[in-house]
Parts: sequence; C-alpha cells; structure tokens
Amino acid sequence: MRILLIHSDYLKYKTKSKTRIAEEIPEDKKQGEYENALVVFTAVEKEDEKNPDIIVENAINEIKDVFGKVGAEIVAVYPYAHLSSSLSSPDMAKQILTNMETGLANLGVNVKRVPFGWYKSFEVACKGHPLSELSRTITDEKPEDASEESKEESEPAKS
Amino acid sequence: MRILLIHSDYLKYKTKSKTRIAEEIPEDKKQGEYENALVVFTAVEKEDEKNPDIIVENAINEIKDVFGKVGAEIVAVYPYAHLSSSLSSPDMAKQILTNMETGLANLGVNVKRVPFGWYKSFEVACKGHPLSELSRTITDEKPEDASEESKEESEPAKS
Ligand SMILES: [Mg+2]
Repeated sequence: MRILLIHSDYLKYKTKSKTRIAEEIPEDKKQGEYENALVVFTAVEKEDEKNPDIIVENAINEIKDVFGKVGAEIVAVYPYAHLSSSLSSPDMAKQILTNMETGLANLGVNVKRVPFGWYKSFEVACKGHPLSELSRTITDEKPEDASEESKEESEPAKS
Repeated sequence: MRILLIHSDYLKYKTKSKTRIAEEIPEDKKQGEYENALVVFTAVEKEDEKNPDIIVENAINEIKDVFGKVGAEIVAVYPYAHLSSSLSSPDMAKQILTNMETGLANLGVNVKRVPFGWYKSFEVACKGHPLSELSRTITDEKPEDASEESKEESEPAKS
C-alpha cells in the first residue's frame, strides 16, 4: 500500500460520474468538505492481498501517528489509484479502505472515507509545514521487524 | 519517472522554508497562481539517470498530448518526490525538471516550473472529468517500442 498524507486547511470533493467499479453511495456521500483534515490518499496494491488485516493495522498505526503529530481534526481516507502501478482488485481495495475507516473510528478518530470508483472533482489546500506532506509504503511486516530502510523512507523527503 | 497530471481550475503555491536541497529562486518565484492549469506532479527516479535526454523527450510528449486533449492553458511542472520510493539525485532531478520546462517552452507551450527543494503550501482544484487525473510511468524506451503494457497503463485507471 502506498499512502500520501496531506495535512490540509481543507478538503472538498464532489462525485461527478461513476466508473465501472463504483461503489453505491447514499446521497450524503456525494460531496464532502472537511477542515483541518489529514487527507490520506491511498493506493491498495496487489501485494496487500496476502495479509490484508496486517496491512490495515499498519496503515492505521501510521495514520494515527501522523494525525497526532500534526494536530488535524479529521482523517479523510481518499482512494487514489495513481500512487501505484500495481493495484489490488477493486473488491479488495474497497474492503481494505472500509476496514481502515472502521479501525480508525474504533480508536476514537474522527474519520470519513471518500467514495471509491467515482470520478470526482476535489480541492485540497496543503498547509506547507514540514510534516504536511508525507508518503509511506505500508507492508505486512510487523512494526518491530521494520528495517532501517523503511525507517529512512519515513523521514520527510522533499523535492 | 512517475508523473501525476491534474487538470485543475487553479493551482496556487507559496514557498515556506528551504530544505537542504533547495534551489535558489528569485522573488517572483516564491509564489504562483495559475488558472486552467495542467499540473504535472513529477518524481524523477534513479533509473532516469541512465538516459535523461530520452526521459525528458518522452515526458514532454506525454504532457503535450494530455495538454492538447484537456484544453488547459498552462502547464505547471511541480516537483513531487512522494510519487516514488526510488528517487534520482537532487541535482539530476533539478536538471531534468529544468529541461522539461525548456523543452515545453520551445514547443510553444505556456509553462511554469514550481521551485525544487522548498516546503510549500499549495492549493489545487481538480476538475473531475475523466481525463483530469492521469498518472504515467515514463521510461527511456523510444515511443515506437512502447509495449502493450505501458499502453494499458495509460488508460485512466480510477479508484
Ligand atoms: Mg512505485
């Protein structure tokens, strides 16, 4: 799983039209607007299909860590296929994204999940402080096995 | 090279603070605002160091193709390390990004390049039509050698 975490002044989105893999959504999910949001653009990858529960757990731990550090008020889990060229099946992606939402909510985090499989317009305003843009590769390693390499990647690398 | 192309109503950015790899910039590059912009978030990768000129040429061709299709008025080349976990050296990245800017300008495209190596706040408004978000992997293959695989990846894949 690849995630891109943006600490934003706001995120707004509107669903425009369905793709062939669109999930059914109620009227009130057709648009959303969240202030002081940690937006988690997420690509679920082929590899994540092996151990989805550990992927979800590790993703939640990373998100919760950053959420606490930056002082955001809400997490917006935003499906984002463009972060990877090796995607999981759409069904697996929907399941994992839903489990991320549920898991974060169970930890008491205010969390919303943006609809999967729709063309959407969106606006995002990234705050620009050093922790306001971070990317992570989430693997199925247990956190205590995390290699030096993955720790290095977790530093803010800028260009 | 990984690129993420966003056809936007607008892009705004402001430089906030330097990283250790920041380029020197004149006062008028410290912020920018562009309307109806094709924003090209770009990660220059290790592999691109082998044949940088072909990478630049292939990137320009991809960008020009999308630019024409979506009817944007300006291209904003935006350095974006977070699209890859295998980055080139910062010097190579700056060189390639600069050459992309120059090459597009030489083709008559209105193009701006966002500063490299700065923490920046930004706002972007993605239009949401089917071609308004596309990602590409740019390799050093000549276009006529492009495999079926890379053609498939060029279809809009949504989640
Ligand atoms: Mg990748």
